[in-house]
Amino acid sequence: MEVLQIQTHSREEMVDITGQVQALLESCGVEDGAVLLYCPHTTGAVTVNEGADPDVVRDIMVNMRKLVPHRGDYQHAEGNSDAHIKTSMFGPDQLVIVEQGRLQLGTWQRIFFCEFDGPRSRKLWVKFLYA
Amino acid sequence: MEVLQIQTHSREEMVDITGQVQALLESCGVEDGAVLLYCPHTTGAVTVNEGADPDVVRDIMVNMRKLVPHRGDYQHAEGNSDAHIKTSMFGPDQLVIVEQGRLQLGTWQRIFFCEFDGPRSRKLWVKFLYA
Amino acid sequence: MEVLQIQTHSREEMVDITGQVQALLESCGVEDGAVLLYCPHTTGAVTVNEGADPDVVRDIMVNMRKLVPHRGDYQHAEGNSDAHIKTSMFGPDQLVIVEQGRLQLGTWQRIFFCEFDGPRSRKLWVKFLYA
Repeated sequence: MEVLQIQTHSREEMVDITGQVQALLESCGVEDGAVLLYCPHTTGAVTVNEGADPDVVRDIMVNMRKLVPHRGDYQHAEGNSDAHIKTSMFGPDQLVIVEQGRLQLGTWQRIFFCEFDGPRSRKLWVKFLYA
Repeated sequence: MEVLQIQTHSREEMVDITGQVQALLESCGVEDGAVLLYCPHTTGAVTVNEGADPDVVRDIMVNMRKLVPHRGDYQHAEGNSDAHIKTSMFGPDQLVIVEQGRLQLGTWQRIFFCEFDGPRSRKLWVKFLYA
Repeated sequence: MEVLQIQTHSREEMVDITGQVQALLESCGVEDGAVLLYCPHTTGAVTVNEGADPDVVRDIMVNMRKLVPHRGDYQHAEGNSDAHIKTSMFGPDQLVIVEQGRLQLGTWQRIFFCEFDGPRSRKLWVKFLYA
């Protein structure tokens, strides 16, 4: 697998990693298949959503925090159970189709690394699967 | 990749696409692996759930709307932030195992294209991965 | 595909299946790629989350029940619509990278089979995809 490094700067953050992933595909020379993006941290996830208007990312994070508040009926002593819950709701993995070495994304789609318990220095694991 | 066309008729809808996907597999002659179903739109998702009783789909959509209401603390001007949030909760991609050219689904499972901001004419991207 | 058997003992449960999946990989002799874990039941899911402190699993299940209660505005007669909703939120499938025959998981990650309408005897389908 390949590894990307991602730095977050606040507790909850969605980082657009589309450019990093595309650059990695090019350096590996892969052509046709799907790229598996996998977060090895238990308070992080990967998703695809709209990247044109930053208010979309803001609305996602603000409303996920409303759904799953930071403080609540939690017994886990680290105080980040909300982050673990959101990780399973968004999922730690994301597949994106690759053709002729290019990420295949819809017009408005960008790939986001989601951190729910930052700020952190994180790794993202990347594995190419052949079609 | 192959492309399926899907038409929705209401704002929120789950369309059973199992037959369309199976027909596509047959036309492509693929045999053994997994099919990646990927929605290139940022208010759509793909999921697998019960297809026998249409009340299940109704219950899913009604209660997702209660969890993530159409109107709320949203700044994105298009008025569809609820749809973007649900897209990341369900995920734009879904893998289904294929063996001997047949979708492998549980007894009650069907594949659904989920639109959260319709009605729309949508595309679904389909990529076959080999086992 | 290969099939794992999983027994649950309460209505909602997350079962750590990491050891079972690793043992299966070894018996199959697969080396490099990703393993697709797929739940063929419509009230079950697969996720990856923290396995070190059992309170994390408890916090996830208690708070998912608060988000999507057992009783509510449901028309499906079987009384398990909450479980169907949670299945689509967590997703029935999960990919994990495999290298040199070993599951590649983060330090705190474990693989969980999630049952939202147990207790049940369940099957988990396992398909290996090559890198």
